[in-house]
Amino acid sequence: MHSGRKQEDGERYQAILETAARLICERGYEGTSMQEIAAACQMTKAGLYHHVQNKEQLLSDIMSYGMSAFEQEVLEKVRSLADPVERLRECMRLNIHLVTGVTGGCSKEVIIILHEHNTLTGEARASIDQRKKRYVRFLEDSFDEAMRTGRIRAVQPTVAAFSFLGMILWIYKWFQPGGRLTATQVADDMVDLLFTGLVTPPGVVPGAPSPLSRERPPVSGGAS
Amino acid sequence: MHSGRKQEDGERYQAILETAARLICERGYEGTSMQEIAAACQMTKAGLYHHVQNKEQLLSDIMSYGMSAFEQEVLEKVRSLADPVERLRECMRLNIHLVTGVTGGCSKEVIIILHEHNTLTGEARASIDQRKKRYVRFLEDSFDEAMRTGRIRAVQPTVAAFSFLGMILWIYKWFQPGGRLTATQVADDMVDLLFTGLVTPPGVVPGAPSPLSRERPPVSGGAS
Repeated sequence: MHSGRKQEDGERYQAILETAARLICERGYEGTSMQEIAAACQMTKAGLYHHVQNKEQLLSDIMSYGMSAFEQEVLEKVRSLADPVERLRECMRLNIHLVTGVTGGCSKEVIIILHEHNTLTGEARASIDQRKKRYVRFLEDSFDEAMRTGRIRAVQPTVAAFSFLGMILWIYKWFQPGGRLTATQVADDMVDLLFTGLVTPPGVVPGAPSPLSRERPPVSGGAS
Repeated sequence: MHSGRKQEDGERYQAILETAARLICERGYEGTSMQEIAAACQMTKAGLYHHVQNKEQLLSDIMSYGMSAFEQEVLEKVRSLADPVERLRECMRLNIHLVTGVTGGCSKEVIIILHEHNTLTGEARASIDQRKKRYVRFLEDSFDEAMRTGRIRAVQPTVAAFSFLGMILWIYKWFQPGGRLTATQVADDMVDLLFTGLVTPPGVVPGAPSPLSRERPPVSGGAS
């Protein structure tokens, strides 16, 4: 009975987090009140406070859930890849799948981590920041290793890491699911763009698709 | 006398915008009250409302000022460059200078445009969105032109445009003025990274700096 009750509480809390994440993702943290979260959960405000300490705790738990999803779906899947370039390419691909919602259903938690990066304070913020920094360090180390082993040319690893991240983490601002570009196409093209670059390789007929990239029909203008 | 009064009002309004931009940049739009803006301007709330219609008008004017600065300092300076690759490279460099605060003093207005992209509503939002879309279209067209003229290999212009933007517009989240990397270094390295890519050109000794990039000592790890 007791553990059944505990499980029920856990499931209820998970449902609250899910609803709160949807609201905060749409309206921002400051723009969402506990009253609105309670209403969306079909609870009273007092009922909500039975499950949740305060709004910051809710935000912290949403971010923590999002970071865990990222670590499980992206980082842990690529860490063991021996070749640093293969590791980075696969990492970018999986991370794009995560932010576009191809993997799991936690793109809103990831968006909240990105958008509310200055909102948390104290220990909760330090903990999320540490997990983010671990990712940045992983990227810098992988770029560094790729350079040392001659797999890529010499670049500044921090600039490379944050370029890699900027390309991926900006996607939530412009990508429209069901739009003209699919999430898989964005992932494949972006990996190709960063790792192969834009220069026409010597000996390639100008305008023809590069042998380094897969052929893809050009799509004309129009911002998403 | 009358035009002197008008000018005085204009200068006062400019000072209010400046102060409001600083607060909104630090605390977010929802996290900043008109009361706090008035206090920071050393005015009463009633006094502030003498100059400002409402908070949304203030946000709209801040964004409009930021977009004008961007158009003047970046877009208008590169539009006339005949070579599309040269145009795009210079555009990226100048835009990075703008977000890092090298150019003008309007990095906070630009950050607000980026961070509060969902906050404005109605006509004010439509106007800013239209100016942003004009920039995306300019980038797509330039990438398209670079492809057609054989200056770069075939890539998806929308993915290229938003990769370009993501790299630049993420910078405000990690770059620290006075830190280990200078704004100029970030600008030069990022342009080089996107346009030259990461692959070691054939015939280059692995690990040695590519002849396509300027020589730069590798800097080891450490997230900013």
